[in-house]
Amino acid sequence: MELKQVLMSRRSCREYTDQAVEAEKIEAVVTAASLAPVGVPRDGRPHLTLVTDAAMLKQLGGLFGPERDIIYGAPALVIVSCPPSRPGIPEMNAACVVEMMALEATDLGLGNIYLYGVTMALQNNPDLMKTLGIPEGHTPLSALAFGYGKEPVTECKAWEEILTRNTI
Amino acid sequence: MELKQVLMSRRSCREYTDQAVEAEKIEAVVTAASLAPVGVPRDGRPHLTLVTDAAMLKQLGGLFGPERDIIYGAPALVIVSCPPSRPGIPEMNAACVVEMMALEATDLGLGNIYLYGVTMALQNNPDLMKTLGIPEGHTPLSALAFGYGKEPVTECKAWEEILTRNTI
Repeated sequence: MELKQVLMSRRSCREYTDQAVEAEKIEAVVTAASLAPVGVPRDGRPHLTLVTDAAMLKQLGGLFGPERDIIYGAPALVIVSCPPSRPGIPEMNAACVVEMMALEATDLGLGNIYLYGVTMALQNNPDLMKTLGIPEGHTPLSALAFGYGKEPVTECKAWEEILTRNTI
Repeated sequence: MELKQVLMSRRSCREYTDQAVEAEKIEAVVTAASLAPVGVPRDGRPHLTLVTDAAMLKQLGGLFGPERDIIYGAPALVIVSCPPSRPGIPEMNAACVVEMMALEATDLGLGNIYLYGVTMALQNNPDLMKTLGIPEGHTPLSALAFGYGKEPVTECKAWEEILTRNTI
């Protein structure tokens, strides 16, 4: 899709089908992450952890308790962890990485959602961080969950209309 | 451009021509900001400050001293300021907003750069923040400088090639 269509089509998706995401689409989403700008890169770059294992996804989704799934049943999750740097830099770097992946996922017809809670919960679970292979000293800060949404990604054609509103 | 081309073409631009940016392009860049996801929106949304006044740009560019221009002579700057929220949320929200603008600017053929230093410097200048109309209680966290770069934005066609490397 053209950039504008992607920007307008991205929505937070909170319901997924059981359809697995094709390996080449996962690869493209992760590759998009590498195109994000990185602030203060000498302190180290963001680290990505791809999770597609059903049992691990279930465990992560239940970190706030069994009554809700904080990853919304998505079949794929990329956790972004960053090393320490100047104030705010790790969080901004993580956000840029997640947004690049979110746009690429949208372009591939994949529902997706920027997640914060699951990484906050992970910070209190050093054993689980170790199991996931998150490097020592890195902090999980943001994540993207994605998969085929129950509602398909639909292109929005109304850029001109958006130009006439001012929502921010 | 197609999304992939924009993602691959975005580069940090540190040299600008004197050419002013057309009003409709500035409007499109700012509009793209409104398409960013916002975490914990009940705490308030990011606030944008558009600066195109040459004297103000010069003042902002010199906040670290006269020997360097921390906005690289760009003819337009959007400062993103956020209200307090949960830890990391203001920084992540600011980053998402800046990235949406950076991609739209790239698509419009405008050089651009994600800036951090100018907003850090601004945080220590409450009088200047007031002059700029940054709302009380908001913190300037990130900015996008943009304009016509001395090197034009060039489309990169090598997505397939990028898929074979692993830079993150």
